[in-house]
Amino acid sequence: MNKKQIILTGDRPTGPLHLGHYVGSLANRVALQKDHTQFIMIADAQALTDNYEHPQKIHDAVFQVALDYLAVGIDPNLSTIFIQSMIPALAELTLYYLNLVTVNRLKRNPTVKTEINQKGMEENLPAGFLMYPVSQAADITTFKATLVPVGEDQIPMIEQTNEIVRTFNRLYKTSILVEAQALVSKIARLQGIDGKAKMSKSLGNAVYLSDSMDVVQQKVKQMYTDPLHLKVNDPGNVEGNVVFSYLDAFDPDQKTVSELKEHYQRGGLGDMTIKKRLLEVLNAFLQPIQEKRKVLEQDKNYVMNILQKGTAQANEIAEKTLQEVKSAMHLHYF
Amino acid sequence: MNKKQIILTGDRPTGPLHLGHYVGSLANRVALQKDHTQFIMIADAQALTDNYEHPQKIHDAVFQVALDYLAVGIDPNLSTIFIQSMIPALAELTLYYLNLVTVNRLKRNPTVKTEINQKGMEENLPAGFLMYPVSQAADITTFKATLVPVGEDQIPMIEQTNEIVRTFNRLYKTSILVEAQALVSKIARLQGIDGKAKMSKSLGNAVYLSDSMDVVQQKVKQMYTDPLHLKVNDPGNVEGNVVFSYLDAFDPDQKTVSELKEHYQRGGLGDMTIKKRLLEVLNAFLQPIQEKRKVLEQDKNYVMNILQKGTAQANEIAEKTLQEVKSAMHLHYF
Repeated sequence: MNKKQIILTGDRPTGPLHLGHYVGSLANRVALQKDHTQFIMIADAQALTDNYEHPQKIHDAVFQVALDYLAVGIDPNLSTIFIQSMIPALAELTLYYLNLVTVNRLKRNPTVKTEINQKGMEENLPAGFLMYPVSQAADITTFKATLVPVGEDQIPMIEQTNEIVRTFNRLYKTSILVEAQALVSKIARLQGIDGKAKMSKSLGNAVYLSDSMDVVQQKVKQMYTDPLHLKVNDPGNVEGNVVFSYLDAFDPDQKTVSELKEHYQRGGLGDMTIKKRLLEVLNAFLQPIQEKRKVLEQDKNYVMNILQKGTAQANEIAEKTLQEVKSAMHLHYF
Repeated sequence: MNKKQIILTGDRPTGPLHLGHYVGSLANRVALQKDHTQFIMIADAQALTDNYEHPQKIHDAVFQVALDYLAVGIDPNLSTIFIQSMIPALAELTLYYLNLVTVNRLKRNPTVKTEINQKGMEENLPAGFLMYPVSQAADITTFKATLVPVGEDQIPMIEQTNEIVRTFNRLYKTSILVEAQALVSKIARLQGIDGKAKMSKSLGNAVYLSDSMDVVQQKVKQMYTDPLHLKVNDPGNVEGNVVFSYLDAFDPDQKTVSELKEHYQRGGLGDMTIKKRLLEVLNAFLQPIQEKRKVLEQDKNYVMNILQKGTAQANEIAEKTLQEVKSAMHLHYF
């Protein structure tokens, strides 16, 4: 098979994955793995840059994330799943790349800037957090990835990576490092159940792939709809209405969803009814995932063996790239 | 033998070593290696943080520095000489430590601040340079060094290291990392031949251990003495007089040096005479070093084998520490 493009993607393991991850990336990975060489990194080292006080949480989440990957259909025979902290070459490459980036450049990175503001880290900014885009550049270039699936807000990360690639290749008169292209997701980000723009663990507004049906039911019940839609007969708004945005994302019968939207907008369709439908849709979507997840969860050895094998494969490639990089930098002695 | 203290020391390989290195550290290492476990690191990765544009220079200097080490009497059976870039654990530890240090803290480091000013790097400060104290903390703690020979101006580096040690041990509820003590050199720094406070390659005022006798003669000839000591019979100043400061450092007959100083101060002793004596002293000092150096230079394999063996020993210890660190951070999966 001629898998032309190499993809590097992954997640910070800070807890189990949610529907937002599914819509934003997991579904895409399952589709892409057939025709691409796909590396999926469980970025525990990167997760530590803003969770260094909670290493046990990161450790435990690695298994949870692996379960989610396999449960949604990421196939270890088609994708290489590996653990970042077990690839020593990534750390070495990061350090060499840090010489090629100025502190001011890192501070100007829009993604990092936003995160620093959000986390209120201005004064106590850990050095490791400031330079995580350089660590990402190492992740991407180590595997010579040509495609990196990202959200709109992550494009500056790819730009930073490509800057490093160009500087390295120019400075060390080589062409071993490869520029990557951002594969920007066309799918709108999934809202949180509270109606906020982003579903996220830290905002407490997520539906997890591993949530029990009872929990899903509760979350659907409290979902933000249209606060002005008080009586069933009132016209309702579907814009910003979480129930409809989830129906858009998960209901296989989009024709009916269109009809429901029209009905809701002209009045006469209650929140209870659309929530009931969403619950059925989510149940149907989650059930096979959760069944697979439960089986895998019982067989931790099997899952960890997959990670071990993937990590060994990733290490082989990473070591090769590192040796090329070190050769270009005249760092070979014997 | 009970070698209680562990020493970590080393040099950035940017060129061959000079008399300033000998007085400031090499002599000390030769003395210390008998009763201490001494690791001597050729810090090529650190040298790259401000020489990333000249990797070939760093590469070539590694061999030169190794020659100097062996020529002055560093004994590979008593000291472990190794190459920094060949110890992957150092890079991994650096990245984990970077999470424990804020960017502001790094910017306040007095040693780094001074260097940034000297090099005029304020605006274009490479991230790798800003964080090299964290990389030093990795060097020191990897070998669990308890003693680090430093100049007065390097004490903040040890403080930074010990801060990281305390933070790490507290955060990860462990005691595996060990605080180090600065072993501050009591010997005054050797002046450059131009009378400047510091002999340094970049100031172009150094006498190298590998300088030919012709070159040494030239350098002694142009040495700064007392600019007001115009006639032989004039009283001369010995303070800041480079010839006398070198006689202090290298003349085995310090009684005669005292007498010469008195004579010079009361007048009647010419610069030619004291320079002639210094040249003899330096010749006597350098000759056996250079003879040994020449033999070693012919046998590059022998020297590289020593580095290879030392690097392998260092790697064994570094890997052990890294595994302890990762265990404390819950970064073990299989």
